[in-house]
Amino acid sequence: MIEENLLIISGTHGNEINPIWAAKKFQNLISLNDKKSNLKFILGNPEAYKARLRYIDVDLNRSFNLQKCESEKNIYEIKRANFLLSEFGKNSVNPFQIVVDLHTTTSNMGTSIVLYGRREKDFCLAGVLQSKFGLPIYLHEKDQKQVGFLVEAWPCGLVIEIGPVAQNHYDAEIVERFLTILNFLDHMSRDFTSLSENLPSQISVFVHQKSIDYPRDEKQNINALIHPSRINRDWLSLAKGDPLFLGMDGENIYYEGKDKVYPVFIGEAAYREKRIAMSFTKKEIIKCSRKWIKNF
Amino acid sequence: MIEENLLIISGTHGNEINPIWAAKKFQNLISLNDKKSNLKFILGNPEAYKARLRYIDVDLNRSFNLQKCESEKNIYEIKRANFLLSEFGKNSVNPFQIVVDLHTTTSNMGTSIVLYGRREKDFCLAGVLQSKFGLPIYLHEKDQKQVGFLVEAWPCGLVIEIGPVAQNHYDAEIVERFLTILNFLDHMSRDFTSLSENLPSQISVFVHQKSIDYPRDEKQNINALIHPSRINRDWLSLAKGDPLFLGMDGENIYYEGKDKVYPVFIGEAAYREKRIAMSFTKKEIIKCSRKWIKNF
Repeated sequence: MIEENLLIISGTHGNEINPIWAAKKFQNLISLNDKKSNLKFILGNPEAYKARLRYIDVDLNRSFNLQKCESEKNIYEIKRANFLLSEFGKNSVNPFQIVVDLHTTTSNMGTSIVLYGRREKDFCLAGVLQSKFGLPIYLHEKDQKQVGFLVEAWPCGLVIEIGPVAQNHYDAEIVERFLTILNFLDHMSRDFTSLSENLPSQISVFVHQKSIDYPRDEKQNINALIHPSRINRDWLSLAKGDPLFLGMDGENIYYEGKDKVYPVFIGEAAYREKRIAMSFTKKEIIKCSRKWIKNF
Repeated sequence: MIEENLLIISGTHGNEINPIWAAKKFQNLISLNDKKSNLKFILGNPEAYKARLRYIDVDLNRSFNLQKCESEKNIYEIKRANFLLSEFGKNSVNPFQIVVDLHTTTSNMGTSIVLYGRREKDFCLAGVLQSKFGLPIYLHEKDQKQVGFLVEAWPCGLVIEIGPVAQNHYDAEIVERFLTILNFLDHMSRDFTSLSENLPSQISVFVHQKSIDYPRDEKQNINALIHPSRINRDWLSLAKGDPLFLGMDGENIYYEGKDKVYPVFIGEAAYREKRIAMSFTKKEIIKCSRKWIKNF
């Protein structure tokens, strides 16, 4: 009997339904073929999924910072975060060393990886996935407004983020993309020495610089949209003088930064409430170490 | 001073935000150019818009049947429907003869027209729009489960439905498509005799036959998705033996109907709660009469 060693979470946001479907489909295929898997599946936010909402009270994927947990114990997502940690976290009776959290975005990100902070084990896992599938990596760091992400609460973890797909909209092709990743993770979790075959000598990451809001009028209403020449161009460079927003009255608003940046999560529907129109990143090369593999 | 004679409603569903933007942008352009317009704009469901939801209590666009209004007076959307009727309905002090209700869909419908029932004035208006822009028309009728649509409560009215676009996701190109329609309606509303220039001799409509649900297991959970060869193929024919759904275990589920049909609203995210995976239509040609124009 194989022991489960890799925790897969889907539905951390209840309206991102394709990962939930992919998780069910994977488990079904395993059971149909009378196989065992090392992957343990859990539905992140069951109440939000039932309600077809991103979350009930607060964003579950910003609720894993412990200070918050102490002071806001009656919030549904805080309770859920504490439950997940108590069942599967490092101090639980059934601790998982690695967690992969499956998400979708309305932005045109393709299949991508999101990392939170510079942890060697995360780099190792992401490097293997980048080497295998050529996935872009968004490294989210130094953003004091956005904290408490789920995967940060485990010793190793990353987000698989696939788009574009509307919230609450099933898309069989998006499901297939998640299944490709799940099949690879299943294979990997049976024998972590296989990591050594796939770890590249270096990885390319898009490092978070800052997020920008939509332009707003004096009443704080949004008064410009993402420019038609910029929407859906995630991961592609933005240089000084490029059109960035299109104002209500038809005027172009240009990017004025000196540095070339690479925007991601362009126009993500769920980030409007967070006052994020897109996030700027810069490219960085990170050298990989064979030592990283020994940690698994 | 021109008198307003055409009521334009946006945000009947609070998470369909591009029509709301287009309405604001149109009014801005009019005022910037110091012009007047005959179009009267109203936000359908302001509370749902604020909450970034389709609706607060019930679907506003199923709340315009009066029987319901009598028995369910405390429901927000019923109150809102009654307010809109009391302000702008046929028995109000400021009655409008024509209403155009602007919507978006997550389905790949393009720019399209939805009619409710066979009313000559609606056919006339739709015919002019079809002739001008080549828009497909979905004629929704004989569906006892779906009643109480907004435009039915006015003497003449239709829905402009544009997709695909995610809920709560701004898309400047979708906005531009609404503006094209608004500019035409503005022009038309200044001189209804212009209708006679554009009324074709006949119109082609896709007539509603029935809606079908997703396949479900014994617990009523969805257990098949729309087939990858069918998703995004709104308005295109479906014949006996064509793949329709893709089951959880990878098996194809085929369309078994004898008659060729044309599915619309394929996979619309908001219709999952209504147990609608898509609606089947059949094509019909309707002859236009020059007499229709005299009614305006």
